[in-house]
Amino acid sequence: MSLDAVLSRIDTDLDASVTRLMELLRIPSISTDPAYADHCDAAADWLVADLASLGAEVTKRPTPGHPMVVGHVPGDGPHLLFYGHYDVQPVDPLDLWDTPPFEPQLQDTPKGRVIRGRGTSDDKGQLMTFVEACRAWKAEHGTLPCRITFFFEGEEESGSPSLVPFMEENREELTSDIALICDTGLFGHDTPAIVTMLRGMLQEEITIEGPSKDLHSGMFGGIAMNPARVLSRILAGLHDETGRVTVPDFYDGVPELPNSIAAQWDDLGFDESAFLGEVGLSVPAGEQGRSGLEMIWSRPTCEINGMWSGYTGEGFKTVLPSKASAKISFRLVGTQDPAAIDRNFRAYVEAMLPPDCTVTFNDNLGAGPASVMSTDSPMFEAARAALSDEWPKAAAYVGCGGSIPIAGYFKSIVGTDAMLIGFGRDDDQLHSPNEKYDLECFHKGIRSWARILDALS
Amino acid sequence: MSLDAVLSRIDTDLDASVTRLMELLRIPSISTDPAYADHCDAAADWLVADLASLGAEVTKRPTPGHPMVVGHVPGDGPHLLFYGHYDVQPVDPLDLWDTPPFEPQLQDTPKGRVIRGRGTSDDKGQLMTFVEACRAWKAEHGTLPCRITFFFEGEEESGSPSLVPFMEENREELTSDIALICDTGLFGHDTPAIVTMLRGMLQEEITIEGPSKDLHSGMFGGIAMNPARVLSRILAGLHDETGRVTVPDFYDGVPELPNSIAAQWDDLGFDESAFLGEVGLSVPAGEQGRSGLEMIWSRPTCEINGMWSGYTGEGFKTVLPSKASAKISFRLVGTQDPAAIDRNFRAYVEAMLPPDCTVTFNDNLGAGPASVMSTDSPMFEAARAALSDEWPKAAAYVGCGGSIPIAGYFKSIVGTDAMLIGFGRDDDQLHSPNEKYDLECFHKGIRSWARILDALS
Repeated sequence: MSLDAVLSRIDTDLDASVTRLMELLRIPSISTDPAYADHCDAAADWLVADLASLGAEVTKRPTPGHPMVVGHVPGDGPHLLFYGHYDVQPVDPLDLWDTPPFEPQLQDTPKGRVIRGRGTSDDKGQLMTFVEACRAWKAEHGTLPCRITFFFEGEEESGSPSLVPFMEENREELTSDIALICDTGLFGHDTPAIVTMLRGMLQEEITIEGPSKDLHSGMFGGIAMNPARVLSRILAGLHDETGRVTVPDFYDGVPELPNSIAAQWDDLGFDESAFLGEVGLSVPAGEQGRSGLEMIWSRPTCEINGMWSGYTGEGFKTVLPSKASAKISFRLVGTQDPAAIDRNFRAYVEAMLPPDCTVTFNDNLGAGPASVMSTDSPMFEAARAALSDEWPKAAAYVGCGGSIPIAGYFKSIVGTDAMLIGFGRDDDQLHSPNEKYDLECFHKGIRSWARILDALS
Repeated sequence: MSLDAVLSRIDTDLDASVTRLMELLRIPSISTDPAYADHCDAAADWLVADLASLGAEVTKRPTPGHPMVVGHVPGDGPHLLFYGHYDVQPVDPLDLWDTPPFEPQLQDTPKGRVIRGRGTSDDKGQLMTFVEACRAWKAEHGTLPCRITFFFEGEEESGSPSLVPFMEENREELTSDIALICDTGLFGHDTPAIVTMLRGMLQEEITIEGPSKDLHSGMFGGIAMNPARVLSRILAGLHDETGRVTVPDFYDGVPELPNSIAAQWDDLGFDESAFLGEVGLSVPAGEQGRSGLEMIWSRPTCEINGMWSGYTGEGFKTVLPSKASAKISFRLVGTQDPAAIDRNFRAYVEAMLPPDCTVTFNDNLGAGPASVMSTDSPMFEAARAALSDEWPKAAAYVGCGGSIPIAGYFKSIVGTDAMLIGFGRDDDQLHSPNEKYDLECFHKGIRSWARILDALS
């Protein structure tokens, strides 16, 4: 079978590939907000129809949350599974978007053509790179090069509550020789990367309650406990003065970076100043004595993602608030145990409560351990070589600061290794206003998957 | 002139007095929100018309904010000035109101009849007690008992930005023998009280900014400074472990309570448990070693009135926020200097900023020193006797935790002593949902002013 013919067809069909992606992008499949549930369902339906057009035997599978989409294409040779997620992040603050988030557009920018809109890079655009590679292959050869299972999720941006039960119930069906996951990025501008180290995640939401109602701070100020003050103390106490997280036993299971990996990362020539400068910063703010890449790839973190209490409108209201809330997330590495950290965090919070204050924890948030891939399988080297053929620079094994719990679940539940390859760029504005995906990344991403399909089959 | 006839008429006309108050309550004169500016103006117009019906020469006086209302009734004997404010607090959270805040109602409750709605107790209902006493006096005698100046403000709930310039420009017109202010409460259920000690106020709003935009906490978590963490540290550091405020030199000008006043307060039999129990609390949360009344009347405080950062909606968004804000207010006592504390607070905040973070302060908020009244004037004892005649318990000199900067301004700008007498109750839900004013307080408040008018003239 000729790879060149497939690559040519990918080039020729690029406009049609973009048009199909735009259709999917127009569906506002925000998974974290129940108001968008129907749109998540519509995105799943769109994928079912699209995979069917590739000849897959495909089904939309209900869950207590948003549906999964699973498709199978029979074939010889190795059995590859491809995972992506069709849900997207919320879009607020909406007023910072230059174009409507769900009206995707092709735009010419000083850095090249981009596809602009929510989900372009995370993850609909990336998901479609693999689908389009398969489409081109089938168009050229009438079949796919090997047996392929497609597995699409709609809850990745809201902690994947249905993922583990679904994988446990469908372990057999989701077993393959390797799980390919496209939800990561290039390193720098054009170094293709295979992620072998992924941080896990633990999400917490706490509400501290004190007085039974909002009070007048003149009448009660001084004598009444202020929950906003209690919350501030809890949040401020989460880090010590060296930037380390203070939750008891938090660093249990956090490995030191092996020298070999540390050396490889040094070779990547990470430009800390440029990375921080892009977002208006200059000084690494993590643990003292750690490199920038360690801070984002191999060290655990604790971040406040949101907090709110009392009067937040225009002007001033001298209220003594009755409650105060915060959303906090931990990024986990090595063998850190989300359940143990959850217990220890909650105990820490409870120990900080003064008399007359109570705390409520949200039990419906996400948690997943970190993943560290074994690169022993020859498939890793084959994929690395295929990527190196497509891009101007040789592919590298890297870490990733984001949490993609699915990678760990393939290993722990299904028993399959996962290979994370993606084509996003650092300036894609993931989770932020004006998200984009470079047209070059979409195009070369499709070509990369065609090369990998060829190399693995 | 017969006081009894006036008191009788007050009793007879109570329904009409309530009806007039309801008209004023229906005007949503929220001063802190620019969207309600027209309603503030309408409330001023209503008062102009009402004072004119008493025979006052009355004018609505423009300011850069909401208008003042000033009315004069000539007469012999002492010249009394009466101050009140026609603006009200915002009403959120609206969903906690059992009745619409601007559709006032008379309700029967287990504790008696109440007038329910925003501004009933703070301060429209209280303001009208004096106006209705004047109306009854005039109806009975054809004139008022002495020379009276009415002075109504519409910015009390938003820091009174126009008050000082207005008083300075109209010093002569606002000069009287004593300024009567009706914006305080009874002590306990039925001890009439003259406030001789009022806390001042300093309002601050700070916004900490770090990254130039909201970031993905996976991609940037660990290496990027999180402004919510910085804000938490700033807020948590405002008190030490004994409950004292840590702003440098904060306690300059805070006097120890004279033994005579301390003894008088002990005699009031303040029921700390009951006071806190009303709002679901049990333990005084202020400075160690201070009594409950000291905490709310004679000790300065620092309270967080609002804070917000990042994602505060439903579900979870793993954002690393670009900024974090808080509203903070200080209650001041003795001779604490708001300007000095403002400077020292800002220096404290700036000293807490890590690299890459900046702070913006809101320069348009309110500030006013505490007031301590001299009770040497015989008018104080005359008023105390008049109040003792109306209520089941003898009147007392007390403190007040709230900030009523006007009291201090009468002394510092106009050179007049102020006498603060009010009829609110602790459970009036000032600044909170379901604000009310007991009908008994409105009724006996009107009668009290008639007795005081009689005693002072």
